[in-house]
Amino acid sequence: MEQVSANRSHGGTQGVYTHQSTATGTAMTFSVFVPDHAPGAKLPVLWYLSGLTCTHANVTEKGEFRAACARAGIIFVAPDTSPRGDDVPDDEGYDFGKGAGFYVNATQAPWATHFHMRDYIETELPALIAAEFPADMARQGITGHSMGGHGALTIALRNPGRFRSVSAFAPIVSPMHCQWGEKALTGYLGADENAWREYDACALIEDGARLPDLLVDQGEADNFLHEQLKTGLLVMACRKAGIPATVRMQPGYDHSYYFISSFMAEHVAWHAERLKA
Amino acid sequence: MEQVSANRSHGGTQGVYTHQSTATGTAMTFSVFVPDHAPGAKLPVLWYLSGLTCTHANVTEKGEFRAACARAGIIFVAPDTSPRGDDVPDDEGYDFGKGAGFYVNATQAPWATHFHMRDYIETELPALIAAEFPADMARQGITGHSMGGHGALTIALRNPGRFRSVSAFAPIVSPMHCQWGEKALTGYLGADENAWREYDACALIEDGARLPDLLVDQGEADNFLHEQLKTGLLVMACRKAGIPATVRMQPGYDHSYYFISSFMAEHVAWHAERLKA
Repeated sequence: MEQVSANRSHGGTQGVYTHQSTATGTAMTFSVFVPDHAPGAKLPVLWYLSGLTCTHANVTEKGEFRAACARAGIIFVAPDTSPRGDDVPDDEGYDFGKGAGFYVNATQAPWATHFHMRDYIETELPALIAAEFPADMARQGITGHSMGGHGALTIALRNPGRFRSVSAFAPIVSPMHCQWGEKALTGYLGADENAWREYDACALIEDGARLPDLLVDQGEADNFLHEQLKTGLLVMACRKAGIPATVRMQPGYDHSYYFISSFMAEHVAWHAERLKA
Repeated sequence: MEQVSANRSHGGTQGVYTHQSTATGTAMTFSVFVPDHAPGAKLPVLWYLSGLTCTHANVTEKGEFRAACARAGIIFVAPDTSPRGDDVPDDEGYDFGKGAGFYVNATQAPWATHFHMRDYIETELPALIAAEFPADMARQGITGHSMGGHGALTIALRNPGRFRSVSAFAPIVSPMHCQWGEKALTGYLGADENAWREYDACALIEDGARLPDLLVDQGEADNFLHEQLKTGLLVMACRKAGIPATVRMQPGYDHSYYFISSFMAEHVAWHAERLKA
């Protein structure tokens, strides 16, 4: 692992790091904010998975999470959204290929070679974080935005007990039922929809997966709400499964970081409450 | 004035606007955050002047001012740092020409045609803000970063009584005594240093100008501290003039928005205290 940059911020260190990933077969870049802490102390970890077109940089620059994480003593990890590099295949659309890994392990050519974001986020990066940072991996929370909200929900649902706290900003709640998801899942996994279910939060819940509880914020003025995000499907799935979900529709807010940053401190506080020692 | 964008954020509206400026003879873009407020209510205004290479966008995206401004009920105005456009002359350096207006009225060719940032910030834009936004122009504060800190200090010093509160992040305190300033003042104003003094905070104080009080944050790990910013000159000038200046050297912090955003909420609170009705 190599440090790309380190900036003191909000009484902690905002770092950017790169490493050679075995999961993706590429270099991968991610950011980590570490609050000041007592020598030897281990801090809880909050994962933030980003949305379409984003890298680690978007939330790192615009997310307004550092003040809240410094206050609560939480490490904040922001991975990239796909493998990158000249030998990584891409698509002309912004919603597939680079910047759009959808947190799956691709099985279809030519994507299967590098697009193993599920393994990267579920297995490889956590091991690296545990080895390189003062992280208490028994206290992890996960959140994300849009495609990253989908990532946070599905990863938490498939790994019961790993995350004490789960939240999302404007998540894609059922990729099987929206154009973004249909395109990505077909491309990465093939046409057999049975292979899609483990990458669909609503299908995972329907198939028996559970979360301890859940916080979701969703802007009512979000252009993608009705065609792509379909928050109502998650509300119904949680209700049916008895998952206590706090889903807040936020009047006037859109899909941008102006929305995310507005509610970031509340999400961090919500995770902090559940990540206490 | 035309609205470029409007995003709901932190319980207010973050807008970006463009208008045809008579001061610069170009289109100028700026951003304004307006917290929610009672109909007919007028809110105090905090000006933020940006540094070299920046537009309105840097602080708007990375400044982390909205939560604090929403809490305090303060309008936050972020202008551009120079005229822009194909017919505006430029320099190869990042520290002169476009993105580097230094808040002066240029007198030298070819800059004198468009580079009237002093008139733009001191006269034209305030009139537009007063006309178009629910702004109480009797309650204004001003701050800025680096070149924008220089702008904030010099504009406040030249306009006694206009600003109830003045602060700066890592300001250039004496452009007459650093390479950035010498290049810019020579280029925009010519070689006669007498013409420079009204654009130099330390010289203005030496010549009798005063501020009510002052808050400055300066990172100790700022690469530009010793060669360009020279905070100590301002400390000495204020001490000699009896200006109560709170100048805080912040260990480990650099010149970036990771530094600015760390202390933004404290600056907004400091202005809010002085801008109360």
